[in-house]
Amino acid sequence: MQIKVMTNILDQNDQIANEINKRLSEKGIFVVNLLGSPGCGKTSLLEKTIVGLKAELSMAVIEGDLFTAKDAERIERHGVPVVQINTSGGCHLDANMVSSVLNGLDLDHLDLIVIENVGNLVCPAEFNIGEDVKVTVLSITEGEDKPLKYPTIFKLASVIILNKVDLLPYTNFDMQSAITDITNINPDTVLVQASCQTEAGLSEWYTWLKEQVRMKKIRGI
Amino acid sequence: MQIKVMTNILDQNDQIANEINKRLSEKGIFVVNLLGSPGCGKTSLLEKTIVGLKAELSMAVIEGDLFTAKDAERIERHGVPVVQINTSGGCHLDANMVSSVLNGLDLDHLDLIVIENVGNLVCPAEFNIGEDVKVTVLSITEGEDKPLKYPTIFKLASVIILNKVDLLPYTNFDMQSAITDITNINPDTVLVQASCQTEAGLSEWYTWLKEQVRMKKIRGI
Repeated sequence: MQIKVMTNILDQNDQIANEINKRLSEKGIFVVNLLGSPGCGKTSLLEKTIVGLKAELSMAVIEGDLFTAKDAERIERHGVPVVQINTSGGCHLDANMVSSVLNGLDLDHLDLIVIENVGNLVCPAEFNIGEDVKVTVLSITEGEDKPLKYPTIFKLASVIILNKVDLLPYTNFDMQSAITDITNINPDTVLVQASCQTEAGLSEWYTWLKEQVRMKKIRGI
Repeated sequence: MQIKVMTNILDQNDQIANEINKRLSEKGIFVVNLLGSPGCGKTSLLEKTIVGLKAELSMAVIEGDLFTAKDAERIERHGVPVVQINTSGGCHLDANMVSSVLNGLDLDHLDLIVIENVGNLVCPAEFNIGEDVKVTVLSITEGEDKPLKYPTIFKLASVIILNKVDLLPYTNFDMQSAITDITNINPDTVLVQASCQTEAGLSEWYTWLKEQVRMKKIRGI
């Protein structure tokens, strides 16, 4: 009975997610669903990405959080459009929440929307929210065992960013083991070792992202 | 309609949690529900606690994970009884899962059970699993904004452990801001600044835990 309810919810969610993706594809907008644990560095990566790419791309951000607008305030300082979704304690964004805020963005003049999901390695993986790709951030301070412990969110990611590599000398993170596990779970993913402190790896991420935006314009829907 | 279903599930869960707590209280066993993000250091803290206290307390561990038994294997090496619950992708433990594994432990010869929940700052806060107290671990690498962003799990914690303080010199974590926010959310919590690398703060945690176990024996149910 419970399983049936869950299946219906997921079907309904996917239908709305498809409508969002169709609507944004018609405008040539590439959409990223940015995922990861609390504190893995999603917002810092997004701030760097805005600074690094806003001269070349017209970006907007949708921020998902349980209660506060702390992350949206950080993004707003960089001068890009941002809308906040508060889930009121809910553990993930769903397509309906995203759909309800899209009219708050000027969709005729955007190349890229990044949706920062709620900090959570489990639940957000189950809900499509209209994205073209999922990008999962794992900070090295979380430990190299996380891909095997939370495989779904790594399996679905087009890019996995191993973040905070500036802290490698102060931890016992086993990079080779992390890479092996990630490659086994998701052989097709793009793996970027990055630091928002030293800016290591960021140009690789920017290059990938710009190429996706370019291809989306060409490919259309 | 959905809210009603959720309320029923929570009511049913609380009823089973109460039965677990009653059963374990009759045996004089103190029960900790250990919470925190993926990679905040819950298992490392547990390993230290076992080494630090196993001469004085008879402990057992229940490990909650989505799929693997990685954490249970780490605990087993320290020679304490451990049972693994795999949620098969589920984002939290519930009372029914805990109830189903209790017969795997020798309840006549235990002082303390620590239940390590799934790494997640959101969903596990909603489900009692028979514990006497919740203990929430926040690693300083996650950032000082997390208590306000995920207030429920900090509000319900009898102890909050600010972990990985050995990494403070390499991050911009604002300890004063974290303490102020936590104190506003939960003025009664015991706040411990700890590191499993340097062992800072651990004796404070052990002392608190031993006192709770002692009081539970005296108090009974």
